[in-house]
Amino acid sequence: MSDRTRRRRSSSRRETSRDAPSSSLLDRQRPYSVIRNKFPPLDPMSEEQLEKIHHMSMRILEEQGLKVLSADARKRLAAAGADVDDGEQMVKMDRALVMDLVSKSPAKFTLTPRNPNHALELGGNTLNFGMVSGPPNVHDMVRGRRQGNFSDYCELVKLAQCFNIITFYGNQTIAPVDLPVNTRHLDTYLACIKYNDKVFSSMSIGSGRVRDAAQMLAIARGVSMEELAASPSAITNISVNSPRLLDEEMSDAATTLAELGQAVIVTPFTLMGAMTPVTVPAALAQQNAEALLTIALIQSANPGAPVVYGSFTSNVDMRSGAPAFGTPENTWANLAGGQLARRYNLPHRTSACNASNIVDAQATYETQMALWSACLCHGNLIYHAAGWMEGGLVASYEKFIVDVEMLQMMAKFFEPVSFSDDEFALEAIDEVGPGGHFFGCDHTMQRYRTAFHEPLLSDWQNHENWQLAGSKTATERATELWQQALKEYEQPPLSEDRMEELEAYIARRKEEIGDGEP
Amino acid sequence: MSDRTRRRRSSSRRETSRDAPSSSLLDRQRPYSVIRNKFPPLDPMSEEQLEKIHHMSMRILEEQGLKVLSADARKRLAAAGADVDDGEQMVKMDRALVMDLVSKSPAKFTLTPRNPNHALELGGNTLNFGMVSGPPNVHDMVRGRRQGNFSDYCELVKLAQCFNIITFYGNQTIAPVDLPVNTRHLDTYLACIKYNDKVFSSMSIGSGRVRDAAQMLAIARGVSMEELAASPSAITNISVNSPRLLDEEMSDAATTLAELGQAVIVTPFTLMGAMTPVTVPAALAQQNAEALLTIALIQSANPGAPVVYGSFTSNVDMRSGAPAFGTPENTWANLAGGQLARRYNLPHRTSACNASNIVDAQATYETQMALWSACLCHGNLIYHAAGWMEGGLVASYEKFIVDVEMLQMMAKFFEPVSFSDDEFALEAIDEVGPGGHFFGCDHTMQRYRTAFHEPLLSDWQNHENWQLAGSKTATERATELWQQALKEYEQPPLSEDRMEELEAYIARRKEEIGDGEP
Repeated sequence: MSDRTRRRRSSSRRETSRDAPSSSLLDRQRPYSVIRNKFPPLDPMSEEQLEKIHHMSMRILEEQGLKVLSADARKRLAAAGADVDDGEQMVKMDRALVMDLVSKSPAKFTLTPRNPNHALELGGNTLNFGMVSGPPNVHDMVRGRRQGNFSDYCELVKLAQCFNIITFYGNQTIAPVDLPVNTRHLDTYLACIKYNDKVFSSMSIGSGRVRDAAQMLAIARGVSMEELAASPSAITNISVNSPRLLDEEMSDAATTLAELGQAVIVTPFTLMGAMTPVTVPAALAQQNAEALLTIALIQSANPGAPVVYGSFTSNVDMRSGAPAFGTPENTWANLAGGQLARRYNLPHRTSACNASNIVDAQATYETQMALWSACLCHGNLIYHAAGWMEGGLVASYEKFIVDVEMLQMMAKFFEPVSFSDDEFALEAIDEVGPGGHFFGCDHTMQRYRTAFHEPLLSDWQNHENWQLAGSKTATERATELWQQALKEYEQPPLSEDRMEELEAYIARRKEEIGDGEP
Repeated sequence: MSDRTRRRRSSSRRETSRDAPSSSLLDRQRPYSVIRNKFPPLDPMSEEQLEKIHHMSMRILEEQGLKVLSADARKRLAAAGADVDDGEQMVKMDRALVMDLVSKSPAKFTLTPRNPNHALELGGNTLNFGMVSGPPNVHDMVRGRRQGNFSDYCELVKLAQCFNIITFYGNQTIAPVDLPVNTRHLDTYLACIKYNDKVFSSMSIGSGRVRDAAQMLAIARGVSMEELAASPSAITNISVNSPRLLDEEMSDAATTLAELGQAVIVTPFTLMGAMTPVTVPAALAQQNAEALLTIALIQSANPGAPVVYGSFTSNVDMRSGAPAFGTPENTWANLAGGQLARRYNLPHRTSACNASNIVDAQATYETQMALWSACLCHGNLIYHAAGWMEGGLVASYEKFIVDVEMLQMMAKFFEPVSFSDDEFALEAIDEVGPGGHFFGCDHTMQRYRTAFHEPLLSDWQNHENWQLAGSKTATERATELWQQALKEYEQPPLSEDRMEELEAYIARRKEEIGDGEP
């Protein structure tokens, strides 16, 4: 627990009266905790269907293969025993070899950021909710829709630090286009380390950028690169350029990070109708083939390196080709992704996205569809769970707040319920009697402050009071909340020594890189 | 299938190009079908916890009992073997007696409305989505928020008839306060029979009103009351006036309808913190005690009469006492309600509500939380699934449309997915090759029109096109859709003879009732 979280907790709502709630927004949130889905996963496929996906994906790898652009990756795979055609850049693998390599992956591992109390457990039934990552644009209701810049980037990192329910960051909260492309990663890594103390993902473009992330995380934690290899901090998400194409910058990032003992998520970019056939089983077989070959490559680089099975199968609108999210097909595929990850004993990354243009009912029901399946399938890393809009083209401040509320509700739903005798309150039921009410009885008075989830955003006032308060929608109220959160934000402490060392590292690397590539 | 549905289907989108979709909104919806949740139910309680709820609820009935205001109901229960105190109006029952009576209830039954193609299967894994029922007020974005009247009532009945995903109506879509209270039920029943051909619920206030419903349904179907008893059409929902109080008008309605062989849902009105203790296990034990004693009463009136176990356990805002819905506690209790219903081998009624004042993100995420649990627990009757707002104080036209979209998505999600060899499209994956796209390949062309759920409300246009179309939220677009649906509405055919007979029945009954009670 950080100092600040500890301080917050001691003055938290749990010790204050509900009739006079804390004026601090952040004090009223849920405390930081590991969230587990203790229900069995919801498996959409029969054992036979699951094995058919496996079989068909193995046929894709055996009969068709993937195009692997990196000569280094092809060399590694050839050495491991794959059937490699360097002229065509094609790699085929038989199922025994694929499964042998994949089986070297750990079923669970821990990622430790600079604040070890915010370490993530990946694998099993943990649920971790991540910040939106990747959009080129940003939107809030005060400043409107605009191209993202570094100032927005830092603000979004701070916002996510404010809320305990967000436990990791994807590759980049937004793309800060005002920074030079070749050194942008250094500035954004520093911002992530300075303004937050949770796990963040590094940029998966080539080996230089991921190596910088590992080096900077080692400095931030005050550990050597050997110690970092034994206790990983860095993670990146690489996409397969579906169908069946593995880009050089992706595979280089993956094998470099694996060699450093850090974690890699492999996520085929499989939008049904565009990058895969329109049928769900085909999309899943293709996703599976692409993910497993890439995981096999990573294990050939460093057997036992931590990896995560990623699934991002949704569909496009067949009229326009536009991506759609939170659709019934996306919901089903999320569940199937979890079932596949368990089939191979791997941690699972999934997501909770939507394709709406505004923070409205559509944005919400699409997100909820994807979020429920992401949780029900035991998604260990649920990407884009806060702030994602427009199919990934926009990071939205108001949507971030709506999502924080939804995620807090989900966390409360998954909390175990006590069934001790006292919870049954038979004396209270007797005491209140037929037709009475429980507002004032002892059993209620002892528990009412913490009995129920207390919303940050939801408004349960009656219609008259809601009108008196300005007839605001949840989206309008969200504007006030992100503004308040930014006001209350406190930078998590980091020693001056380490900060100086980080700044020196960046200065040196910028010098080295110059106008070239990192 | 009604003539109209058949006609619609032959010109449905499934036979037209997606590039030129039907201009008819109703032609673009899902066809009428029985929806099943083939996944195992999500049970939140261990076997031990479930048995503890059972045990504690039996202790409530054995040690405390319920206050039963109806002398007739007490007499029936005394005759069945209960321990009745007529002075205090208290009824206690031992667990053997309760369970013996409850066990006479059928695990499944069919409710047949005047269109037998719209019959409902209750029990097992069927999901049926119902129209909002009960609000005193109505809202739409054209006419604003207002007290409900009979014209609104009829419009809402027509709207729900338009959409195949809505398969039943609760007690009343709204309360039409412009009609006299003592004969209102006759006019609303006639409107339900005239403007729709699906199952509707009758008013559960005393025996006269439910008898009228059964009589009118027999006329509408052209069957005798004996035939109706063998093939029930009428259903009502009675509430227990929690805690532990069964009103005379409720029990009279229940026993009368049961004696006619018609169906009764028993739903304790259990808002945690107000009508039950603040703890979930206590609320469930109390809900269970209240539901089972009332079901036992119904079985004592007519052993084997169709009954439904209803659960409506949510919580109040402990600051204001206002009801809240779609909370994590409501979500959990919905699941537990399904588990309890299965414990007693009874069909299950649950609901999908919210407490928002406007059709916004909050209305949507609260509804989704409740809806997911209602579906995952195999809710056979999911009440208030379309159009409910403000904790039940308002029926909303726009929310109705948002809900129709969400329910259609849910139905598609629960559809079985084919895993035939052809669905795996290995040839297409080979043909497209690495880095290609699937838009034009044969496999796609043969399937793209029906491959994915096609939304009625969701807008997947890019930002520029969405702006050109007026930058409308889903709620604003919903206004256009309910207006279009009402334009396209067609009255389902009913023979003139039967209509005349129904009108004569009503005229005679109004005469009989006069200024008195029905």
